[in-house]
Amino acid sequence: MAPKPTLSRRAAAVPPSPIRRLAPLAAAARRAGKTVHALNIGQPDSPTPQPILERLQRFAQPNIAYGPSEGLPEFREVLRRYYAGLGLEVGADEIFVTTGASEALLFVFAALADPGDEILVFEPFYTNYAGFAAIVGARLVAVTTRPEDGYHLPGREAIEARLTSRTRAILLCSPNNPTGTVYTEEELERVAAICKARGLFLISDEVYREFTYDGRHHRSALTLDAIAPQIVVVDSLSKRVSLCGARVGCVVTRNRELLDALLRCGQARLCPPTLGQLLGCGVEEVPPEVTAGMIAEFQARRDLVYQRLSALEGTLLQKPEGAFYVCPRLPIDDGQRFAEFLLRDFEHEGETVMVAPADGFYATANLGRHEVRLAYVIGGSQLERALEVLVAGLEAYRAATARP
Amino acid sequence: MAPKPTLSRRAAAVPPSPIRRLAPLAAAARRAGKTVHALNIGQPDSPTPQPILERLQRFAQPNIAYGPSEGLPEFREVLRRYYAGLGLEVGADEIFVTTGASEALLFVFAALADPGDEILVFEPFYTNYAGFAAIVGARLVAVTTRPEDGYHLPGREAIEARLTSRTRAILLCSPNNPTGTVYTEEELERVAAICKARGLFLISDEVYREFTYDGRHHRSALTLDAIAPQIVVVDSLSKRVSLCGARVGCVVTRNRELLDALLRCGQARLCPPTLGQLLGCGVEEVPPEVTAGMIAEFQARRDLVYQRLSALEGTLLQKPEGAFYVCPRLPIDDGQRFAEFLLRDFEHEGETVMVAPADGFYATANLGRHEVRLAYVIGGSQLERALEVLVAGLEAYRAATARP
Repeated sequence: MAPKPTLSRRAAAVPPSPIRRLAPLAAAARRAGKTVHALNIGQPDSPTPQPILERLQRFAQPNIAYGPSEGLPEFREVLRRYYAGLGLEVGADEIFVTTGASEALLFVFAALADPGDEILVFEPFYTNYAGFAAIVGARLVAVTTRPEDGYHLPGREAIEARLTSRTRAILLCSPNNPTGTVYTEEELERVAAICKARGLFLISDEVYREFTYDGRHHRSALTLDAIAPQIVVVDSLSKRVSLCGARVGCVVTRNRELLDALLRCGQARLCPPTLGQLLGCGVEEVPPEVTAGMIAEFQARRDLVYQRLSALEGTLLQKPEGAFYVCPRLPIDDGQRFAEFLLRDFEHEGETVMVAPADGFYATANLGRHEVRLAYVIGGSQLERALEVLVAGLEAYRAATARP
Repeated sequence: MAPKPTLSRRAAAVPPSPIRRLAPLAAAARRAGKTVHALNIGQPDSPTPQPILERLQRFAQPNIAYGPSEGLPEFREVLRRYYAGLGLEVGADEIFVTTGASEALLFVFAALADPGDEILVFEPFYTNYAGFAAIVGARLVAVTTRPEDGYHLPGREAIEARLTSRTRAILLCSPNNPTGTVYTEEELERVAAICKARGLFLISDEVYREFTYDGRHHRSALTLDAIAPQIVVVDSLSKRVSLCGARVGCVVTRNRELLDALLRCGQARLCPPTLGQLLGCGVEEVPPEVTAGMIAEFQARRDLVYQRLSALEGTLLQKPEGAFYVCPRLPIDDGQRFAEFLLRDFEHEGETVMVAPADGFYATANLGRHEVRLAYVIGGSQLERALEVLVAGLEAYRAATARP
């Protein structure tokens, strides 16, 4: 008898995404005629700005060809000018273009961590960090942040307590997915000081850079000149100009050795998507008022979501400071069960809501069970309505789970 | 003193691509005014067929949005019909869409092999297998094939001799990159019998499926019903319809467990490029005569390349049977030195040629040093001219290396 072919242990370790694992239930709900308001995924409804979308029509090459593994020269130059416009002086050769921030994270994890090495993260964290870590065999070690603190960072000692001889990097995401927290300058410097003292890389996920509210300013890790070779910024055009499906992002670093490693990883996959990069070249033609209008719209949505949720009995949340997520603690026993209930067992006048259970945003077992992530990626009366439906869903869930 | 942050050992293990590592020398040659005929890379000059390219103009969505992690339903259905048209009955849910065959290979390696596990390949092999293996920590173990045999496979014993308790899969690429060899049905069955007897996966890279010459027929591994759950086909639209830069490919397998693992890997990176998939939906509108014309053109080029190279003293090659590569043994001491010489130290009436040194297509040290890979991705008088320049380059290199 031949041995049974089995998958790798690694394959079993790659977690299903809490953002996407409910997709089959949502599809079933839609087939059953329900309207499903999707608050589960960070796919904004913002239109892709015209100067970018127009470039589709202007494509005039005979075929869609490979570009350089490190990105098209004209696109890297556009990105260089974008960073310069933010006061961040980096060379085009310090920008490595990737297939979205996703590939940037995968390659950075691979280049910094061997199997068993550790990357320190703050939980709740962007759930897909766990997927990339599992693929390369790295371990995420989590420092817990709390809704009571608006998910801001604990003190230096609490962070240092989780470092081991295997720690290779600290990963910071600000404005934060899933919490909407924007770390202060002091918090950024706190983490940088640890990285400096312990010789760690600081991976800074800044894909929501522009999404800050109430006049807040986001400070990029690229300003931390004292540890410049340890700074690795992960970025993406997906949210900034509504190009999620184009899959264009980048790594920015002044570390030559890392750039060389990224290039070799990148050569294996040939190149990032050519069309996405050609569209991305239009980013500097987007009028500033378009971006400002988009941010103002998200701030207004944030206000609405915060107002409705904080008025509910048994919820806990601070006002989110950026990105377009909120991660409230709700009066529920289990976010996964609640999310399933909403899709399968509930409707409010033919409508329901899809949310992301927050347990998948934690590395520590049993944390996040009372939280869900909501993405306010729909607006106007639809968002009002989705929140009404969510509130009705909470009441129905409470009634259903209170049964003997 | 803080410890110096260093990259992972894995980072050092990812090899530079022999196809792309000479790009800086080629750029310098072009800056110096030389015309560089690029025979190094599999970027065909074929135009993307109109029914595909037209879809760029027809894009009418407000933004470029994420799609499902497993691929857009309409694109998976197009792929299902494409396979059905070849007599290969697979379900749309047995097709997992990826960011090119590159991501397909990366995810398949990750899902089948843990660090230290082995994948058997036949060398010379598509060099980027080595990059993906290094990223996931798998080991490529190579069975050598020889130009004397037209790079056809050795007997069953020679293959089985390289299997160990860590072997998880055998990877076969036909039509072959870099050799142009199309394995016979008997060769495919030889490998399948080993996989069956030893409980191994058979990863079949079939991206050049249509590129067979002299009336040869390519048999897909998807026909091997006796070991259906062990078959993993890696595919891509890049070459078939000249969509290299669109980054769309797929994995086809009837193994549900593997499909589930691929989905979880895929959820981490959200989705494959939306635009590439929308273009790919046009693949079934491409008239068969367009594909037939393209294949006839490549066969004519193959004839020309074979005729010119086999006439040279000291070369060894069999007539390639498919794909658009040829991997001749040349009268040179070292392919890397020869390739560098062509770009840096040589010109023929202002022109030179870029080739891929074959050593990077071997896992065994010191093999392939007398071979280079040529991609006949240019045609007509330009290909004639490139071959003239190559022949002149060989003479000049011989003269230069013969000096005391």
